[in-house]
Amino acid sequence: MNSDLDRSSRKSDDPSNSRISHREHYPWATSLAGMHEFVWQRLVRGVADRRSPARHPTLATVSANGLPSARTVVLRAATPATHCLEFHTAVGSEKVAHLQQQPIAAVHIWDATPRLQIRGVGRVSMARGDDVAAVWERIPEASRRAYSAGPVPGSPIDGPDAWVAEPDPTALVVLTLSLDRLDVLHLGEPHRRAVFERGSGWVGTWVVP
Amino acid sequence: MNSDLDRSSRKSDDPSNSRISHREHYPWATSLAGMHEFVWQRLVRGVADRRSPARHPTLATVSANGLPSARTVVLRAATPATHCLEFHTAVGSEKVAHLQQQPIAAVHIWDATPRLQIRGVGRVSMARGDDVAAVWERIPEASRRAYSAGPVPGSPIDGPDAWVAEPDPTALVVLTLSLDRLDVLHLGEPHRRAVFERGSGWVGTWVVP
Repeated sequence: MNSDLDRSSRKSDDPSNSRISHREHYPWATSLAGMHEFVWQRLVRGVADRRSPARHPTLATVSANGLPSARTVVLRAATPATHCLEFHTAVGSEKVAHLQQQPIAAVHIWDATPRLQIRGVGRVSMARGDDVAAVWERIPEASRRAYSAGPVPGSPIDGPDAWVAEPDPTALVVLTLSLDRLDVLHLGEPHRRAVFERGSGWVGTWVVP
Repeated sequence: MNSDLDRSSRKSDDPSNSRISHREHYPWATSLAGMHEFVWQRLVRGVADRRSPARHPTLATVSANGLPSARTVVLRAATPATHCLEFHTAVGSEKVAHLQQQPIAAVHIWDATPRLQIRGVGRVSMARGDDVAAVWERIPEASRRAYSAGPVPGSPIDGPDAWVAEPDPTALVVLTLSLDRLDVLHLGEPHRRAVFERGSGWVGTWVVP
């Protein structure tokens, strides 16, 4: 990340002004607990509000041959108590194949209004079939096309619309990302960055931005 | 990605209407060449317009122990002729360490207005020192703090502001991502997805979304 992003909000290079600016505009960025709590507020809001940036995180995985891959996912649940995030995908998707080999995934959100980058890493568990029947029941009819028994996403086709979605409950995979680490960067003035880890009870540490 | 995203623009489930909708609203999504050209228009615009989504891609890398990592970067150059993207970073950053071990990176952009997900993969080359002296000269004074001889980003510190940036031309690393593959998903109605590869002259193939 780069200071290019924060010129619009820069008031002064005087550090005392900078601290006032944090207190006034980003009070949550003045303490580790505040940073941590605010991240979860934004994540929980992402589940409820489809216009929120946290609604559409980027999920990064690693392929069987060790290459990175990233795509947008929809945030379906965010549980502060367990530090778990939930996404839904199709069984034939590339990310399912990746996670079968390397279950550790990274999640990334750039939340422009609070000038906040949220990065998380953790292990993904996958559930399917009877275990997620209740989830399937809650998916609106029109959205079920995303979980299809038809050809696997990414298969070459003759024309742009030469495929048919066949909604199939057994094609739904529920991904639960159990976070082990959160790396939070706030591009206030000056930048602030904190790392929170499950192993240390999510207490957090300030780090160099 | 999921059909959750496209309810707002859905007009009808009638496929003939859907095709009209593509022609009217997303003419670039009616051909492979149009998709490819539009992606590069958006990337080039990202370099010039800091409010454009392509200004801030997510760059995914793989750590030495095979774990995924993703962060926001600023798009500094996009060259359609060579299919190269340029980013700047600090020599001590995590992504430089990752790229020294695994030079293949993935880039991801979600461009909401045209309902377009751009995913790219390719090899990153890194340049530093005398080779990038001209780049350093063009970086505004206030932005040079991002390239510091001070402590490495991510180092634990005692308080949120207990660090000093010391702008240092030798800390600047210019990353050039030479794309080998572009995977482009348009969430029109119906969804359309195409893959373009350097090895086949970027002609492109429609694939199942």
